[in-house]
This record gives sequence, C-alpha cells and structure tokens, in this order.
Amino acid sequence: MSVTVMVLVLELVGTFAFAVSGALLAVRKGFDLVGSLLLASLAGLGGGVIRDLVLNTGVPNAFAAPQYLVPVALAVLAVFVRLIHEDRLRRTLLVFDALGLSLFCVMGASIAHEAGLNPIATVLLGVTTAVGGGALRDVVANEVPQIFNPHGVYAAPAFLGAGATALLLEGGLFNAVSAVAVAMLVLTLRLLALRYRWRIPLAVLKRG
Amino acid sequence: MSVTVMVLVLELVGTFAFAVSGALLAVRKGFDLVGSLLLASLAGLGGGVIRDLVLNTGVPNAFAAPQYLVPVALAVLAVFVRLIHEDRLRRTLLVFDALGLSLFCVMGASIAHEAGLNPIATVLLGVTTAVGGGALRDVVANEVPQIFNPHGVYAAPAFLGAGATALLLEGGLFNAVSAVAVAMLVLTLRLLALRYRWRIPLAVLKRG
Amino acid sequence: MSVTVMVLVLELVGTFAFAVSGALLAVRKGFDLVGSLLLASLAGLGGGVIRDLVLNTGVPNAFAAPQYLVPVALAVLAVFVRLIHEDRLRRTLLVFDALGLSLFCVMGASIAHEAGLNPIATVLLGVTTAVGGGALRDVVANEVPQIFNPHGVYAAPAFLGAGATALLLEGGLFNAVSAVAVAMLVLTLRLLALRYRWRIPLAVLKRG
Repeated sequence: MSVTVMVLVLELVGTFAFAVSGALLAVRKGFDLVGSLLLASLAGLGGGVIRDLVLNTGVPNAFAAPQYLVPVALAVLAVFVRLIHEDRLRRTLLVFDALGLSLFCVMGASIAHEAGLNPIATVLLGVTTAVGGGALRDVVANEVPQIFNPHGVYAAPAFLGAGATALLLEGGLFNAVSAVAVAMLVLTLRLLALRYRWRIPLAVLKRG
Repeated sequence: MSVTVMVLVLELVGTFAFAVSGALLAVRKGFDLVGSLLLASLAGLGGGVIRDLVLNTGVPNAFAAPQYLVPVALAVLAVFVRLIHEDRLRRTLLVFDALGLSLFCVMGASIAHEAGLNPIATVLLGVTTAVGGGALRDVVANEVPQIFNPHGVYAAPAFLGAGATALLLEGGLFNAVSAVAVAMLVLTLRLLALRYRWRIPLAVLKRG
Repeated sequence: MSVTVMVLVLELVGTFAFAVSGALLAVRKGFDLVGSLLLASLAGLGGGVIRDLVLNTGVPNAFAAPQYLVPVALAVLAVFVRLIHEDRLRRTLLVFDALGLSLFCVMGASIAHEAGLNPIATVLLGVTTAVGGGALRDVVANEVPQIFNPHGVYAAPAFLGAGATALLLEGGLFNAVSAVAVAMLVLTLRLLALRYRWRIPLAVLKRG
C-alpha cells in the first residue's frame, strides 16, 4: 500500500470516528437528523478543511472529493439506527473522538510534510488538523471544547503523535506500520488519560 | 439581465436580509451600535467569505468589493431607527434569516458551479454559503445556531434549494425566473416549517 | 528601521500581548497548561491567520514561520510562573488585550495595503485582524466576545486606528513614528473607554 493510499485510509477512518462523535453529541443535545448530519460533517471534515485552507492548495478535499461524505453518512446512520449505542453516551463519544484525534494528528502532519512545510509547521498543522474538527463541533454546539477540559489530557498526545510523525518523515521511516503504531500510541495515551484522569499542571502555578 | 448580474442581486438582497437578522440579534443581546455593525457584517458577509475561502479564488468579495458594505450599513441603520420593528423580535429575526437562507443557497450553488465544482460539491458549497453566516452570527453571540434548532426545519430547505439550483445549472435551465422560483420555494418551505412547527426525526430512533 | 521590520515588530509584540490575554483567560477558566498554550495561540495568532487566509497569499505566517511561536511561548510561561500577575485578573487581561488590539489594527492595515488592497478593504482587514484573535479566544472559551461588550468601546478605536493607518499609507506618511503614534492613540482611547465606561449608543434607538 502506497503512503498516499494509507494516509487516505487514515483520513477516512478518522473522519468516520469524528463524525460519530458529532452525531452522538447531536443526540445528547436533542438535535434532529439534519442537525446530526451537519454536526457530524463539521466534526469529521472540519479539521481537514482547516488544514487545506492553511495549505492554500485549491478547493479543500472535503468539498472537492465526494468520497469524504461516505464516512459521514455512515456515521450518522449508525448512530440513528442505534448500531452505535449511546447508553453510556459521553464515554462512547469520547472514545470515537480519541480515535479521530489519533488518526488525524498522523494524517495532518503527513499531508503538511508532503506539501513542503518545515518540520515545526508540520507538527503545528498536524495538531491543528487533529483538534480542529472537534473544536468546531463543540463550539457550534455551544460547549466548551474538549481541548480545554482540564480533566483529561487531550492536545498533548496529539502533539506527541504529530511530532513523532514529523520525525519519522524526516528520517524516511514513515510507512503504514510506523504510522499505525504512532496512532495507536496516541489513542492509548488518550484513553489511559481518560481512564485514570491524568492531569497536566494548570495554566498557573499554585501559590506556595 | 445576465445571470452574473442576477446572482449579484440575489447576493446583495440576501446580505441585507442576513444583516438585518444580525442587527436584530444585537438588539436582543443588548449590544451597542458598533457591535450591531459587526454582528450584521458577520451574518451578512460570513457565508460569502467562507464560500470564497473554499473556492480559493483570491481575496473574498466581501473584502475586495466595497459595494457589499452597503446592504450591511442599510440593515444596521434600518434596525437602529426602528424602520424594521423589533416588537416581535424573534419572529422578525427568523423571517429575515429565512430570506437570506433562501437567496444564499441559490447564489452559493450558482457561484460554486461557475467556479467549476462538480454537482455534489456545488450543492455542498451552496448549503455552506446559506447556513454559514447565520451559524457564525449565532456562535459569536453565544447562542446555539438556528441550524441545530429541532423546532424548525432549517438546513433541509437549503439542501433542496442548492440541489434544485445544481440540477437547473446542469440542465442549462438556470435563469432569473427559475432562480427566483427556487428561492421562493425554499423561503415558503422554511416559513411553513416555522409556522406549523414541522419537525424532522431526531438524531436517534426512539426506543420501540 | 525599514517599514517591513517595524511591522514585524508590531506583530510580534501584539502577538505577545494577545497571547497573554489568552493565557490569563485560561487561568480564569481553570484550563491546564496545554489548554493555556492553545488559547494563547488562538488569541495571539488567530487574527494574523484570518488576515493571511483572506489575502490568500500562501501558508499563513503563523504556520510557516516558527518565530511567531516565541511570543506565544513567552506569554504562556510569564503567566504560568506568575511573572504577569493575575490578582486583578480581568483588568490585566483587558489591558493586554487592548495592547494587542492597538498594535494589530495598524499592522493588519499595513499588510493589507502592501498586498494591494484598496483603502476601504485595507481598513476592513485591519479591523478584522485586530478583533479576530480576541473573538476566536472568547468564542472557543464559550464567552461572549469583548467586541460585543456594550460596557466598553472596543471595535471603534480599532476602526479609527486602521483608518488612520490607511490615510497615512495613502499619503506616504506611514513610518515607525506615525505607526506607533496611531497605536498609542488607539490604546489610550480603549483604556480611557474602559476606565470611564464610555458607551456607544445601543443597536436600537430608545422609544421616545
């Protein structure tokens, strides 16, 4: 499998995962089916659209290439017919969101590198791609974005994943195996952080 | 009247309508006159700016062409001097918002088609143009966007209008008469949906 | 000092000021250190990214040029180690936000002019650059943006500053001295407006 095809697979699976998180949030907020479709699109496609706007390389893929709509439609349908259960709604939402995050930080960094960005910009755009869709999803649904939830380490694993991807790309070691390994590492860290309520120091040092 | 001029007229009238909705929301939220101008600009010009960013064809019209500011300024003034009454504020806001929605889905799809997008992308960008400004307006004013209000069918008529426009464009039947007919159909559907509280199924099937 | 270097200095200092406002808001909202970094980036770099997306001139500076990350990192650190006190949190936040606003309206208008925009578009993009980062900061943190706070004149000084910059640029009188003078005027107006609770008429005339 070529790297390009592999990155496309990462993006489509990640889009499905983020779209599920959007559809589940639509359920929690009592939105209707069309609202679910819009929120799933925003969550699933938003990160990639921001990435393409920043890279400034023509019409963003999500608009130009119809295949990106397939995982979004499948996600909305899976939630609508209860194939993906929402019994423990918040937890399921966070797991799918974590899957999207882990795949998108690798995919975003890889596409940024391919577009010729320097390694620092590659990491930044990887993180932006990974956290962008989820942030749009939460902001338009009038929630404080998960990225700012201090009860759970969210953006740090994405930084790590985008950084590892940039290193692999610089070293010529980026391939399907190493890409999936990085994504699984990010996913594991995020899920452990949720499970054991890992915390990062707050934005200000406590007075001594 | 050429199609280009006609689309410009749709856009200017739609910009005025959305700008009125923004100025009325500014009244409801107790913002001052400058805040009203900013919210009216965001509502009236936001959809077109998103459209132009996606199409990636140079500086967005709203910035490059000063004439787009005229309908925004007129809208803010009309609300400020109470020419447009806010006695039944929420209803008036929704009617102007519906007018903007119906004109922008036709205008957005038409400009997307002219820029060479495929029919599916034409529909998507038409809907995005139609719902984008209103979503920005509601998000920055810290409200849940109208698109997600389950008590009223909002994005579905825009999908229908953008889809009909794409079909007319493909069939070579797009002209001033058919464009206005599609916009009036979308407006009628949206107002009927508001009046009779039409609902779309929720994002999840009810348990049997 | 050439105008280009001077504008870069305005941008870096303004980025630091806005980034401090973002980090202080992160403290107030109880976000962690990574959330502080993200909110500081959004506040400090958001206006410039919007400017570059509108100008459509390749990858935005904030992504392409690593030096923009330095003032953001310094701001987060300064807030984290309490070098910038948050004892009177809201007031300190507003002062740094005002400094960013005053520098960014001059910088944004200057870069818009250099990119060949007409004077009206120059003013608009200057204002958008000045208020964009702060609006993003407040929206993702789920606050009503400062731009809409009727207890304080916010966007009006930015309009004045961008307008004065456009006039100076048209007249060939734009240089380091006049640029700093305009920025200081904007800052003074904004701080006086905060101190003496200046108000602009509301979005609607009161009934007589």
